[in-house]
Amino acid sequence: MINVMVLGATGVVGQQFLVALANHPWFNVVKLVASRRSAGKRYVEAIRDESTGSIRWYCDEALPEQFENMVVEVFEENDLRDVDLVFSAVESDVAREIEPKIAREKPVISTASAFRYEEDVPLMIPGVNDDHASLIEEQKRKRKWNGFIAPIPNCTTTGLAITLKPVMDRFGIKLVLMTSMQALSGAGRSPGVIGLDILDNIIPYIPGEEEKVQREVLKILGRCDGKTVQRADFKVSCTCTRVNVKDGHTESVFLSLREKASVEEFKKTLRDFNGCSNMDLPSAPKRMIIVHDDPYRPQPRLDRNLEDGMATIVGRVREDPALENGIKYLLLSHNTKMGAAKGAVLLAELLYKRGFI
Amino acid sequence: MINVMVLGATGVVGQQFLVALANHPWFNVVKLVASRRSAGKRYVEAIRDESTGSIRWYCDEALPEQFENMVVEVFEENDLRDVDLVFSAVESDVAREIEPKIAREKPVISTASAFRYEEDVPLMIPGVNDDHASLIEEQKRKRKWNGFIAPIPNCTTTGLAITLKPVMDRFGIKLVLMTSMQALSGAGRSPGVIGLDILDNIIPYIPGEEEKVQREVLKILGRCDGKTVQRADFKVSCTCTRVNVKDGHTESVFLSLREKASVEEFKKTLRDFNGCSNMDLPSAPKRMIIVHDDPYRPQPRLDRNLEDGMATIVGRVREDPALENGIKYLLLSHNTKMGAAKGAVLLAELLYKRGFI
Amino acid sequence: MINVMVLGATGVVGQQFLVALANHPWFNVVKLVASRRSAGKRYVEAIRDESTGSIRWYCDEALPEQFENMVVEVFEENDLRDVDLVFSAVESDVAREIEPKIAREKPVISTASAFRYEEDVPLMIPGVNDDHASLIEEQKRKRKWNGFIAPIPNCTTTGLAITLKPVMDRFGIKLVLMTSMQALSGAGRSPGVIGLDILDNIIPYIPGEEEKVQREVLKILGRCDGKTVQRADFKVSCTCTRVNVKDGHTESVFLSLREKASVEEFKKTLRDFNGCSNMDLPSAPKRMIIVHDDPYRPQPRLDRNLEDGMATIVGRVREDPALENGIKYLLLSHNTKMGAAKGAVLLAELLYKRGFI
Amino acid sequence: MINVMVLGATGVVGQQFLVALANHPWFNVVKLVASRRSAGKRYVEAIRDESTGSIRWYCDEALPEQFENMVVEVFEENDLRDVDLVFSAVESDVAREIEPKIAREKPVISTASAFRYEEDVPLMIPGVNDDHASLIEEQKRKRKWNGFIAPIPNCTTTGLAITLKPVMDRFGIKLVLMTSMQALSGAGRSPGVIGLDILDNIIPYIPGEEEKVQREVLKILGRCDGKTVQRADFKVSCTCTRVNVKDGHTESVFLSLREKASVEEFKKTLRDFNGCSNMDLPSAPKRMIIVHDDPYRPQPRLDRNLEDGMATIVGRVREDPALENGIKYLLLSHNTKMGAAKGAVLLAELLYKRGFI
Repeated sequence: MINVMVLGATGVVGQQFLVALANHPWFNVVKLVASRRSAGKRYVEAIRDESTGSIRWYCDEALPEQFENMVVEVFEENDLRDVDLVFSAVESDVAREIEPKIAREKPVISTASAFRYEEDVPLMIPGVNDDHASLIEEQKRKRKWNGFIAPIPNCTTTGLAITLKPVMDRFGIKLVLMTSMQALSGAGRSPGVIGLDILDNIIPYIPGEEEKVQREVLKILGRCDGKTVQRADFKVSCTCTRVNVKDGHTESVFLSLREKASVEEFKKTLRDFNGCSNMDLPSAPKRMIIVHDDPYRPQPRLDRNLEDGMATIVGRVREDPALENGIKYLLLSHNTKMGAAKGAVLLAELLYKRGFI
Repeated sequence: MINVMVLGATGVVGQQFLVALANHPWFNVVKLVASRRSAGKRYVEAIRDESTGSIRWYCDEALPEQFENMVVEVFEENDLRDVDLVFSAVESDVAREIEPKIAREKPVISTASAFRYEEDVPLMIPGVNDDHASLIEEQKRKRKWNGFIAPIPNCTTTGLAITLKPVMDRFGIKLVLMTSMQALSGAGRSPGVIGLDILDNIIPYIPGEEEKVQREVLKILGRCDGKTVQRADFKVSCTCTRVNVKDGHTESVFLSLREKASVEEFKKTLRDFNGCSNMDLPSAPKRMIIVHDDPYRPQPRLDRNLEDGMATIVGRVREDPALENGIKYLLLSHNTKMGAAKGAVLLAELLYKRGFI
Repeated sequence: MINVMVLGATGVVGQQFLVALANHPWFNVVKLVASRRSAGKRYVEAIRDESTGSIRWYCDEALPEQFENMVVEVFEENDLRDVDLVFSAVESDVAREIEPKIAREKPVISTASAFRYEEDVPLMIPGVNDDHASLIEEQKRKRKWNGFIAPIPNCTTTGLAITLKPVMDRFGIKLVLMTSMQALSGAGRSPGVIGLDILDNIIPYIPGEEEKVQREVLKILGRCDGKTVQRADFKVSCTCTRVNVKDGHTESVFLSLREKASVEEFKKTLRDFNGCSNMDLPSAPKRMIIVHDDPYRPQPRLDRNLEDGMATIVGRVREDPALENGIKYLLLSHNTKMGAAKGAVLLAELLYKRGFI
Repeated sequence: MINVMVLGATGVVGQQFLVALANHPWFNVVKLVASRRSAGKRYVEAIRDESTGSIRWYCDEALPEQFENMVVEVFEENDLRDVDLVFSAVESDVAREIEPKIAREKPVISTASAFRYEEDVPLMIPGVNDDHASLIEEQKRKRKWNGFIAPIPNCTTTGLAITLKPVMDRFGIKLVLMTSMQALSGAGRSPGVIGLDILDNIIPYIPGEEEKVQREVLKILGRCDGKTVQRADFKVSCTCTRVNVKDGHTESVFLSLREKASVEEFKKTLRDFNGCSNMDLPSAPKRMIIVHDDPYRPQPRLDRNLEDGMATIVGRVREDPALENGIKYLLLSHNTKMGAAKGAVLLAELLYKRGFI
């Protein structure tokens, strides 16, 4: 068993990590790290609101019993001795400071954006760009680290990149135009989106989101020569909005392909994409992409939990005569499962299997 | 004063007509027509649910007192003698049957889609394509009618066409890609969207909607030679979805222009567009298009009622490097005001002023 | 194995029955019955919307594979030969006609209200009033039936009656005042509650609901002498409202008890109530009542699925000095699980175990 | 004209004060006071979010032009010279410190709870307990103040107390049991209720709310002898919950009266209650209480804005046989209009008219 530390274990993403790691066949959580305020407390007490006695637990799944009584610690570098792997669920500014300290000795799989855009840092989705893992060697060499940092992409990037991968390989892509309708849980709880603001409403702006998605898609789908990633050579433009949905980002995609695809060829290409589904990774979905023929799907509430939130769901595939070799479709991706902690655990599983951890 | 009949006066759109026509300076409602079930009843009784005594009135505004005691009638052709103008709020299948009967003698302004796509029927938005009114003469001549049918566009078309008009005139348009997030009220109440289906959800499909918008935009922005309309020569593609918003359709638009526009030029072009705002039409908005600089706008709940729902609200104008001379923006249009009954009243005002009524 | 027919199998409640009966250890579904429109079709085709190809499946759980290809039939009395038990999910007017035809030969467990208030019909909740089953003998005798009808209560009654049972037994009850905040799924889909009507809103009236709850609570908690039920001798008053929640009815309860109860005694009494939890019934919850100390619970979204929707969740237990021996609390009960089909399956399990089926 | 200062002018309640005071016939806003962070800025800049340029304005009504360019100041005691009246919209802890400093010289009408429960402080609703104003003299005398503090009640108290007043006067009250379903806007924005927490949910607890309502109703409806208020001699018990509604608190009320009232007598008593509606106060509603016969009303979205949010709306009046002389009903009160800033302005109007200001 690999001994695991969860950094930022009491926050929303940290909680999702605990759910994703409960009874994991390979990873054994040995350390829960959080801020000084929580240190020394049993986990269940660390997340208790003192004034009301409420447990601040935000996952749909119950708090796994195995963590209830684990004592939460503050981060100290010498605690890393007994740890083989760190999952980091901290905010980007904290990540920028702490993750390199850890990476000197141990691997860090992170949901933070702090290092996503550095040249020697791979931005990976298992089954999509596994060869980018070779950047890890370059990163360790250049930075003289024994460990490394491997972040996962933004939650809005993930489903888009997954659907584009088999399309790019089969038909080539010239242009991607995407409008997202993103779920509330993507905004977190500090305070995230206020109920008053989203009831009977849409928020048409998520700061920084569009730039992240545009940048990350091209890096993920780029060509890696072992030292660097050459960005994919198509154009991407996004408009990102927030809607009153709890979980599950919906994306409306317009594509111009290099080669013409019929609707049936396009659907088959998506359905045939195995991604990481047959790599024997415990958190991998059985179907990487699920394609609906029913025009009323995907719907976030009906489809987000398919394959425990690890599949990307596609629907309404249509030819688009307005674009050269045009295709349009909608996709749905669970932003707090495949798009966050459980996606990070999946990445760790891949890197472990490939010997990087 | 012009004497007006409202056809389908007890339905949702009919109710909106009554609100739009209450105390109108030019139009005087003299007849309310509905189905046989309502005939002979006072209006307030015709919309009462008998089992509970509830009044089924669906507008935000109160039922105007002047209509409370008007007796609802069934349609009979010889009733048209005292009527100068008919507003039709019936479903498309009923419209297809009844509207031509009326048009033999009197003008019909309709919210139904039944005749929108016929060659001799103008599809007008005041201030956008007023010259298309000349088709009315052709229609009367060809069909040997004394009256005519003038439908308004689909509610999702309206805001899009309004924003495209000044852009087309100034920069030229090559490509329009639009994703809509449409309000519940657009689906009506028979039964419209069920609460269970839209709570915490998005419905990714609205049958027929995309085709209507694509077709209507090109007709509205086409060139009219008095006998026919030559469709505008750009490409349009739409994906239409339903979200949990009461009123106000939000649309995410990506444009490729013929000539490059900076963000400031683009905004100025929209802001400078007078449309019908200075034509002394009672229902016209003071500002045809309102452009926000605040990236968090437009929001349906905050902006839909600006100018009593008759303005089109634009925000998040950005250059789009992914497209040739690319621009992207969001727009908001009130689907039951400018996009439905009050928009129809505005069209009647224009046609009256121009002597067609 | 008991061979089971589901009557009304294609409707919302019928679908919930299929989920509750999938892989059931005792009950084997051998017949799916629905209206003539569905007859002769495979189940998955019978629930398909022909115009769009959509599958109209409304449960959170997937359609169990075992039913996908079962052929749906219309009801014919001679079909009952191979059936040991019928679950009825039809509307009350249909129930009134068909259920007696079945009961001549076979037991019917029904979610309809048609027979709930007849003197020789027990209204049972397993673990609450199991002795009322003796009415079944009386019913068979009086009506000369080989089978019988056993309905379950209204979904708003169930949680209330469950919490009142141990309280009545331990402290006695003088008065119950309850305000409900009911979920959308309780209204069904024909059309149920329209999205436009419930967004940013509360509907303060559910026709007939309050009378049902008031009547049913007193029957369920009444004393049965084998031939008739003497209504419980306390007063009950309800106000029932509809809120924008998908599943789970929340009820605010004020009680006046015969003997004073402290908060701790009251909680202990609820927690100690086993109900049917230790009777080895496959659908029974492990905990009949779950009592939260956290004042922010129960919350419908967080708590409704505890024990697969079969537990009643209680919170905010407080003494109420405004009432003699006053106690107030909130409860949550899953209206489509314990309150509907799965509750009916639980009742069948009890009656089977006791030899009535 | 009375010169008015608004304390806490940039917050949510402060903004509501500005709307309520715009173009007021008696009150002239001369000073806007807020925290040091806003000081020296024009109002429209003080509420601008610097990072995005967004204007943080939270009322449905537009920011009145007259305030856009007023310079926001910090509170300094010597600024009170030019001020005749202060509206305080600050939080309770700030109120406790600053309001007495002001009251030494000038009257303060406050939405804060800080002084509501002090013996010499009246808790008034115009038209309900106007004679309590005599406490103001006592307060000034005892505290040696030239001004005074007059708070308004909690927003959940207001509608309840208004409906109870005529009932108490006509029939006498023994017992009040109330369950509230409160709107999001009552929780404010710091951060108030998070969207994630209220979507598809109910929050069954609002800290301190029930105690406030229970205490305030009895004080408001108590008998004032000029020096003190003797609490009303009936019992009140509340359970307060939060639902996903923007504005408008709904309350389900069960009453036991001293004398029996028929439904028609009860409705007539409410309808006949003039309250402050005929006192020539500019902010008073024309109808103090509106009673619906339609059982589907009141609904928050349909009824909250009647009389510009200053009326209390009642529906579903029924006899309640479970209680001695029992009556039950639902009420709706706009929590940010009559229940907050505009209610405070109304109180100031009354006190001005009576010569206290």
